[in-house]
Amino acid sequence: MTKATETAARVAALREWMREQGLGAFIFPSTDPHMGEYVPDYWKAREWISGFNGSAGTAVVTLCRAALWTDSRYWLAAEEQTEGTPFEVIRCRRNVATADELVAWIKGDGTEGDIPAVGIDGWCAPQSYVTGLYDAASAAGLVLRTDLDPTSLWNDRPPLPDSPIVIHPLEYAGETAVSKLCRLREAIVAKGANATIVTQLDDIAWTLNLRGTDVHCTPVFVAYLAVLPDEVTLYVDPAKLTPEVERYLEEIQVRTAPYAALANDLRQSYALRGLRFLLDPDTTNSAIANAAPVAEPIIEAECPVAQMKTQKNDAEIRGLQSAMLKDGVAMVRFLHWMEEQAPYNPPVGDENKGGFHTPPAGGLRGATELSIDAKLTALRAEQPGFRDISFDTIAGYGTHAAIVHYEATPETDIPLEPHGLLLLDSGAQYVDGTTDITRTIPLGPLTDEERRDYTLVLKGHLRLAMAVFPAGTSGTQLDVLARYAMWQDHKNYGHGTGHGVGSYLSVHEGPHQFRMNWMPAPLLPGMTITIEPGIYIAGSHGVRIENTMLIVEDDACGAVGCERFEASKASPARNGSNPSPITSSWCRLEPLTLCPIATTPIVMEMMTADELLYINKYHARVREAIMPLLSDPAERSWLAEATQPIG
Amino acid sequence: MTKATETAARVAALREWMREQGLGAFIFPSTDPHMGEYVPDYWKAREWISGFNGSAGTAVVTLCRAALWTDSRYWLAAEEQTEGTPFEVIRCRRNVATADELVAWIKGDGTEGDIPAVGIDGWCAPQSYVTGLYDAASAAGLVLRTDLDPTSLWNDRPPLPDSPIVIHPLEYAGETAVSKLCRLREAIVAKGANATIVTQLDDIAWTLNLRGTDVHCTPVFVAYLAVLPDEVTLYVDPAKLTPEVERYLEEIQVRTAPYAALANDLRQSYALRGLRFLLDPDTTNSAIANAAPVAEPIIEAECPVAQMKTQKNDAEIRGLQSAMLKDGVAMVRFLHWMEEQAPYNPPVGDENKGGFHTPPAGGLRGATELSIDAKLTALRAEQPGFRDISFDTIAGYGTHAAIVHYEATPETDIPLEPHGLLLLDSGAQYVDGTTDITRTIPLGPLTDEERRDYTLVLKGHLRLAMAVFPAGTSGTQLDVLARYAMWQDHKNYGHGTGHGVGSYLSVHEGPHQFRMNWMPAPLLPGMTITIEPGIYIAGSHGVRIENTMLIVEDDACGAVGCERFEASKASPARNGSNPSPITSSWCRLEPLTLCPIATTPIVMEMMTADELLYINKYHARVREAIMPLLSDPAERSWLAEATQPIG
Repeated sequence: MTKATETAARVAALREWMREQGLGAFIFPSTDPHMGEYVPDYWKAREWISGFNGSAGTAVVTLCRAALWTDSRYWLAAEEQTEGTPFEVIRCRRNVATADELVAWIKGDGTEGDIPAVGIDGWCAPQSYVTGLYDAASAAGLVLRTDLDPTSLWNDRPPLPDSPIVIHPLEYAGETAVSKLCRLREAIVAKGANATIVTQLDDIAWTLNLRGTDVHCTPVFVAYLAVLPDEVTLYVDPAKLTPEVERYLEEIQVRTAPYAALANDLRQSYALRGLRFLLDPDTTNSAIANAAPVAEPIIEAECPVAQMKTQKNDAEIRGLQSAMLKDGVAMVRFLHWMEEQAPYNPPVGDENKGGFHTPPAGGLRGATELSIDAKLTALRAEQPGFRDISFDTIAGYGTHAAIVHYEATPETDIPLEPHGLLLLDSGAQYVDGTTDITRTIPLGPLTDEERRDYTLVLKGHLRLAMAVFPAGTSGTQLDVLARYAMWQDHKNYGHGTGHGVGSYLSVHEGPHQFRMNWMPAPLLPGMTITIEPGIYIAGSHGVRIENTMLIVEDDACGAVGCERFEASKASPARNGSNPSPITSSWCRLEPLTLCPIATTPIVMEMMTADELLYINKYHARVREAIMPLLSDPAERSWLAEATQPIG
Repeated sequence: MTKATETAARVAALREWMREQGLGAFIFPSTDPHMGEYVPDYWKAREWISGFNGSAGTAVVTLCRAALWTDSRYWLAAEEQTEGTPFEVIRCRRNVATADELVAWIKGDGTEGDIPAVGIDGWCAPQSYVTGLYDAASAAGLVLRTDLDPTSLWNDRPPLPDSPIVIHPLEYAGETAVSKLCRLREAIVAKGANATIVTQLDDIAWTLNLRGTDVHCTPVFVAYLAVLPDEVTLYVDPAKLTPEVERYLEEIQVRTAPYAALANDLRQSYALRGLRFLLDPDTTNSAIANAAPVAEPIIEAECPVAQMKTQKNDAEIRGLQSAMLKDGVAMVRFLHWMEEQAPYNPPVGDENKGGFHTPPAGGLRGATELSIDAKLTALRAEQPGFRDISFDTIAGYGTHAAIVHYEATPETDIPLEPHGLLLLDSGAQYVDGTTDITRTIPLGPLTDEERRDYTLVLKGHLRLAMAVFPAGTSGTQLDVLARYAMWQDHKNYGHGTGHGVGSYLSVHEGPHQFRMNWMPAPLLPGMTITIEPGIYIAGSHGVRIENTMLIVEDDACGAVGCERFEASKASPARNGSNPSPITSSWCRLEPLTLCPIATTPIVMEMMTADELLYINKYHARVREAIMPLLSDPAERSWLAEATQPIG
């Protein structure tokens, strides 16, 4: 059977099941019960039914039609992967089809008169999405059912991940789980509730100081955490609990129960205890939200852990700094290796540019996007405490660098050539911290536009990196600083400018962001945030330059810009268990990432004195931090040269 | 009778009236039926009852107590003005007391058990405020009545303004009233309504191309405008209509009715016509909102005129440019006059600083804050088409300049001395346009901090002034550009960075603004907006530098910053009657204001090359525009010197 025939057979079986259940349509979103960024295979029902393996998309099957909504990143892939199947691809502007467009399409089917019920698995969709769907369906005269799950038809369904859970040492966590639970309870009570179900896997891992390997690139484990006034229960597969973890949970007075027992407990043992649950409708699945006791109203609010874990404590900051040192060594060794593939002597007149050498025509010894990704990962894996990469590497060369979410595959992989720009966005999970770095690497001669765009992106990065701002300023209020220079050239980018980064947790951590859209979440000392502006010229080239930053109190007043850069090292905002959210009225951004930024592409006339000063001070710091960790003389001399002052 | 005794007598009479009406408390807000910035004396009931004459504050009288809430600008004045009266002053952080604090205070009175009804005049409070008050009162077990008005007790109440209305010529308006009404109807229908009551006086004046002199500093007249599918009615005192205006209204098919007839018309003749009213709960008074027919639901939305009038047409832009020329001449003549009060030869080493000369010790010939205000107004009044000032001048010298809302009075007036900074924020109403300009003028030697703060404010002004941005960007997304430089010094200001300016209308025009708080209103070509960052050091000095700007399409791509400054003159976005809201995807800010910015206080080492280039190009433009309009050789040579290139 071909893949297409298999898909057709699955759709046929689904329709038979739908008729038995009295359903005229079934909706498959891309989400799982925990609303994380990466979905374990067990929950990839949308891929199972449609054959489409992209990270975002919504499949709908009615009795006579089938469609798949996906955004521009996946239009071509979705069409290829669903060719010959019952699915038509509907090109969508967002990464989730709205309730209104789904319902309109289902109504347009014309068959809903016979069976006016629409199904969606309530476990795999957030409550807010299901509520919207319910409203849209009701308005269209359709019934919405969330209690039916067709995955019983899924014969070769992968198992739930069952890897063991490990304890995240206090040395790295910096605050005991008991203390975190205590603060979580305070936050819940402050919102007028007295209980919550933590459903996001990174929130659970952070709260209990536990880690796992259930999810791609993210050191978490599948579970729910019920926090009640008098007890805390971890709903988790008992097979994942080692004797050590069992002892630990007992010590911190966390009960355990089987993963699947939560819904029943909510309906039964929790129902009569006067619990007022705080639940986040955007991250809590509809099945849990609807199982929660209704005797008291549900308080809808963001899970307090989301905010709590963004402000790192001393130990977490030390861990991040240590992880960045290791990552910096791996990156420097990688960049030196890249250059070794084809040593290069700069043309006369370029000698004093400093920064990366670039290989000549003919060089690069067979390196491709995939091969350099493998090399970089191997170099990272040599570092102590390496656990995994923190997301799938984006290694885009030439025109591929203009595709924002490009991920090289054996089919798309191309050899690197000795000219143009390589965009490399990568990161790692170390036991003490998570990293995220983008460098755009010149492989040889560049066009004037490439150099200009590189410089505009760098200027945007630096302008934001040098900002001083009142604690509590939101990322939206600062975002323009990264765009100002390129806007002068009518260039822009369609993604946010930065996101939080976890402490050996998810590489994308909210709610704070640098973003044009209004994001009121305040920026406070102790938070991590990336700065990653970019320019993407379709069919030509792409540039992005990203450092991960730590928000610190700015004590040095009266100085200008980067003069204070070196004045104080990371001054954490708080000591573990007793934080005050705002301890200083002024903040600045301290770079955590330690890796040279290529200076040869820079158009020097476009740079201001303070930008050059920052670059030079940053490179001095990188050299000082990384050099002692390098022993290979060639690597050492490469670093010395890459961090030479410019201007 | 002293003022305090008078107030006490009024409060006593009010309480007697309250008992007769069955009221336990009465609330006096500062607003009038039209929710404008300046309140005609007729509606100053809060001042009548309390004796407090500030522009913002809320008075409440119960049967045994009386209180006045006001914000920090007025704490001292309010305490002085209410001394010896029954009023206690309650220091409030905002300029309006919230419903919750008022109700809590009334409840705390302890007398509400006897008479649990609270009154507020529904004509003089916005619907949104009354709704909030109603909710708070209900929750506290109080009844809210909005149909009782105690001003029958106000014996010497000033009359309603009755000055005649004049036609605003099409030459300046650029679009006929018929066309504006047509567009307004389209906008109403687009929101799902078919009728509206325009209540803001500048919106009415703009829509009908009429002007008046009923309100301080603002060329509007008291009226309501009912726009229905088949008719338009202007509710206005017939005494204000000259035969010419009557003919004009007939021509454009606008009916007239007495000002006071609106409520009855809403309840009676409009009630049975299936009208769906669009009303803005923030600007429509509660009496009108509650009189509107309830057969169809009210659509709550911003009055479309607010947005329509922000995008100026060709004629309005020409008018603004003409007004700015006249204002520039008056300002230059004023600045030259200031210097003549005490001619000054800069010390050796300062000769090449360019910019303003500053007078030596002993100079200034008796000039005071009030006297220079009078001189400046006199110079403006000499200009053709001058009608009025556009707001009360802020002329603050020395420590007074640090008081953001300072307005000199005979009691506070101080002589200018030959050192330090004079902050002068002023503007005028010309028949073709409205102006708003702030200059901070050095009167002699400055401290290092004054020079540094002056430079930081200037840098903020210039950074925002040079911005290029996608059409539709909001002011919140750009605001930080004006603060970036001073934030490096941990300095900031507590006001917005800029506001729209009317076309011979209100000097403050929304909804777009430069402001840190989230203001989603998009910035589009044809809008005016000020840039006015400041630094205020209490007890020492204040700096603000303000130009009024026009948002224009940015055609010149590829250039950097101010290189495009001169490339195109104001390129209006649209031609009167048929605008498309976004005609270009990139915008920039073109300065409308034409007046030198003092350069002698600038700390040159703090300036970047592009900032100096901008200043010099701006000054070249000012010189080119203003010089041909000056005949006095002394004024001409002053301008030549004040606009010399620096750096």
